[in-house]
This record gives sequence, C-alpha cells and structure tokens, in this order.
Amino acid sequence: MVLVDIGNTNFHIFDGKKVTHTKRIVSFKDDVYYISVNKIKEEEFLSKNPGAVNLKEFVRFETSYKGLGIDRIMACKSVKEGVVVDAGSAITIDVMENGVHLGGVIMPGLFSFKKAFGTISEVLKVEFFLIDEKKLPNSTNEALNYGSLGAVKCLIEKLSKGKKIFFTGSDGKFLSEMFNNSEFVEDLVFRGMLKTINEMERK
Amino acid sequence: MVLVDIGNTNFHIFDGKKVTHTKRIVSFKDDVYYISVNKIKEEEFLSKNPGAVNLKEFVRFETSYKGLGIDRIMACKSVKEGVVVDAGSAITIDVMENGVHLGGVIMPGLFSFKKAFGTISEVLKVEFFLIDEKKLPNSTNEALNYGSLGAVKCLIEKLSKGKKIFFTGSDGKFLSEMFNNSEFVEDLVFRGMLKTINEMERK
Repeated sequence: MVLVDIGNTNFHIFDGKKVTHTKRIVSFKDDVYYISVNKIKEEEFLSKNPGAVNLKEFVRFETSYKGLGIDRIMACKSVKEGVVVDAGSAITIDVMENGVHLGGVIMPGLFSFKKAFGTISEVLKVEFFLIDEKKLPNSTNEALNYGSLGAVKCLIEKLSKGKKIFFTGSDGKFLSEMFNNSEFVEDLVFRGMLKTINEMERK
Repeated sequence: MVLVDIGNTNFHIFDGKKVTHTKRIVSFKDDVYYISVNKIKEEEFLSKNPGAVNLKEFVRFETSYKGLGIDRIMACKSVKEGVVVDAGSAITIDVMENGVHLGGVIMPGLFSFKKAFGTISEVLKVEFFLIDEKKLPNSTNEALNYGSLGAVKCLIEKLSKGKKIFFTGSDGKFLSEMFNNSEFVEDLVFRGMLKTINEMERK
C-alpha cells in the first residue's frame, strides 16, 4: 500500500516506512490511496494511477470550518489535543480540542515570505535563523527574519495557549526548534490517512 | 518648499498642507527636499529636479541599526516615545524610546501578502477585514485574513508593550483601527523631514 499527498508544489509519498517528496509523477504497482489540494496535479497523477482511491470521499472529521483543505484535515485527524502546524508552500496552524477542530489560520510559507520581500525591493534579502527575542532587530536581515519567521512564531504562540504543538511539512523541523512544547512528526498527514483507511475497513 | 518621499511604488509629495501620492515624475518650481529608498526612481526624479536636496546627507538620528531606510529614519525622528508603523509596500515596525531608535522589523505589506497567497494557490484569495479575535477562523478568507493581518497585529502588539502606536502609509489608517492606543499621522515621514530642515537651518 502506498499513500500519496498531492500538494501545490510536491507529491509527498509514504510507503509505510519513509516519506519522500518529488515533483515527478510516479506510477505505482501497489494499492494507492491519495489526497490532493491541486486539481491539475491530481489529474496528472490519476492518468498514471487510474485505480488510486481518493480518501476525501471517506474521511470523517468534525469541524465547522468551511472548505478546510484535505491535507489539513488528515494532519489534524491524527491529533486529539494540540496545535497542528503544517509548514510547506503555505503555513497552516490548526487548533484541535478533544478530537474536534476549532479553527485555524493560513500564512505564507517561509519561501513565500522570502519571495514577497524580493518583489518589494531587491535590497530586502532574507536568510532565516532562529530568533533571539531578547533583542530587537538591528539590521535588514534581522528585521526581515523577525518580520516573517517572528510573525509565524507570534501567531503560533497566540493560538497554542500552552497546548502541545505538532509540526510537519518541509519547514516543520526548523520551526519546531523555536518551541519547547513541540514535536516534529514527518508523517503526520499520513497518520490521518491511515486512520481513515482503518475506519473504512471497520465499517 | 516641497517635500518628496520616493518609495518603491510611489512618489509621496507634501506641499506643506496636504500629502499626495503619484507614480508620475513631477517637476517642481519651488525648493525641493527629498529622501529616497529606490535608486532608479531617484535618478528619474533628479533628472527633472536637478536642484533637489537629498536630506539623507543632513539627518541626525540615533540608532545602532545598520542600514535603516531613510523613510523609517524620518518617520521615527518625529516620534520621541512610541512605536512607528509605516504600512506601504512593506510594513515596518520601529520602537522609539526617549528619542533613541531601539530596533525594528520589516513585514510584507498587505498587498504583498495578498499576492503571496495568490502565488501559492489560486484558491487562496483574501479580502482583508478587521479581526474578531474572540473566534478562530472558520473559512478560507477568515484564515488568510488572520494569517496576514492578524500576524501584523500580533507583531505590533508584541513590540509595542503598551507604548503609543503611530501609524502612517497607505494601509496605516486601516491598521490603526485595530488598536486603542494609536494614532494615524499621514505626514509622519514629512514631519521628520521638516525637523531635519529646521536643524540644518539652525546650524
């Protein structure tokens, strides 16, 4: 069995042991279960994997959020209590309480912040580093880092209110290092997908 | 006398009474004092106003920040105690204490957040509205609004620590409405420029 999470930039693949990321469309021989947030990439993927099962049709998840992305649903489904941060092209921050999704926010991803600064002015070039909050920024790079990475940290702190924070996604490990009560879980989305498959089989 | 603040997007002009904004390069008959953060725009401007005086050469300002933008210097120079937020193409947040600049951050401007989301995915369209922080976002627009405008608010709150907040720039009025202890000052940058001219004349 292979699980595929089709994102806006990459295909994320879980073979039951490890997670890999690729821009190539791979054709699998095993049973394939997938989710997708990108229609064009999904169609390309289905043309090479016509039997792949879209888990969106089967997932059960409690939220009053209208139009919650299926990748966020799967990541949140694997967490009963805590905050879920998926840091990829976008950074999503979702709050889970006793298995119920209370809401969440969407920020630009770190690469997107970098691009945004570059578009405003060619002098606004940022290299990210873990913030020292004891001192205010005193250079352009420090100011840009605080205004992007620091803003991400600020919102995660505000929304987490002491809850444990689960990080996933390409920048998840880096972001998790800014928090004490945190854990980086590379396969968080896939855990929710596996849970969904187990629920399907139990029916 | 005319004051001109050359930004990355617009020329901001103050005739002593009101502030206007234009993308056109205007030629003035009066004495012109200017500042600039954009070299190309500055050269175009000087070709039509060869006698214009660059106030950067004359300004006195206390900070340990390396490479602080001249527009930020001028806005901060007009505030002795408080936080200065200039919300245009970028949003800068600077902290002033007893006439000394302690540091500051640079965030993408609101339009830049909007563009960044659009680049990540065509479904991420945001219309900004004043945030209700009592409830977590429960739709894509609410989530994007909270993840951009809410992030700006979060950092301003964090850095202001109860100090008065002075807003300027094209989105300054809108942002100022999110804070109690705030004031929108359209000509904040120009007040610093006038202060600089007065200091030059006193020498």
